[in-house]
Amino acid sequence: MGTEIERKFLVTGEGWRGQATEPGLRLRQGYLHAGTPVVRIRQAGEAAFLTIKGPGLLARAEYEYRIPPAEAEAMLATLCPPPIIEKTRTRIRHDGLVWEVDEFAGHLAGLVLAEIELAGPDQDFARPDWLGREVTQDPRYQNAALSQAKAPPEG
Amino acid sequence: MGTEIERKFLVTGEGWRGQATEPGLRLRQGYLHAGTPVVRIRQAGEAAFLTIKGPGLLARAEYEYRIPPAEAEAMLATLCPPPIIEKTRTRIRHDGLVWEVDEFAGHLAGLVLAEIELAGPDQDFARPDWLGREVTQDPRYQNAALSQAKAPPEG
Repeated sequence: MGTEIERKFLVTGEGWRGQATEPGLRLRQGYLHAGTPVVRIRQAGEAAFLTIKGPGLLARAEYEYRIPPAEAEAMLATLCPPPIIEKTRTRIRHDGLVWEVDEFAGHLAGLVLAEIELAGPDQDFARPDWLGREVTQDPRYQNAALSQAKAPPEG
Repeated sequence: MGTEIERKFLVTGEGWRGQATEPGLRLRQGYLHAGTPVVRIRQAGEAAFLTIKGPGLLARAEYEYRIPPAEAEAMLATLCPPPIIEKTRTRIRHDGLVWEVDEFAGHLAGLVLAEIELAGPDQDFARPDWLGREVTQDPRYQNAALSQAKAPPEG
């Protein structure tokens, strides 16, 4: 178990695309429980994970277990309410820190979010020029909420 | 993943106690989600498990993953709504089949249930003389429901 300190931002423009040093990773995820605690099934490339996330937006307890991909597929198909979130995650190094840029597909096409994991809530970091408004505290941009949205949040 | 075919009964009297061939196993369990699907944390002796159960009473999909006991303890303490179910599970062989007799403690003290796992819903089996009324189809006796009950169900 760890406690995640993550900050999340909208991404503006296409400037981030040229900065990736490796191919993006395709993610598919659904929720066995989208409330508190979050219980998530995620396929990440060839791997799959069952993840429990406690309450909170900026910092939250997280427990993650690797599970057989075929069981993840079955649970996504039969136990997670649709729609399933599909996105491509690209890691981008900027000024010594790693950003994860998530480009959504399917019902959330058009939405691009960037997350950074920090050692503490007050850690400073350099902002890439493609970084938009911070949405860490906006519950509409939590993945569990996005899974139930009909389209990307506005504003 | 497997599909469980289980039938569940009340236990009447103390006749089952002398029939165990091994000591009972102490179980503690709580629910990250008590609805559908059920997401359960269980400590069983020195081991711990995270279990997902699909809908259904007699037959249901089940996915179970072994997890570190310390993480189970932390999730029971911080993420599962109290009360935590405590019970001792005793396995009893009767006429070639194995019964699991669960004697509850804590807020459910006095409740004793017996479960048998069958190869199919129509499989016949011999009834031990301590077996009471069948409650397979009674949702009050599902563990997720018992975890939210204040006392053993009546009747």
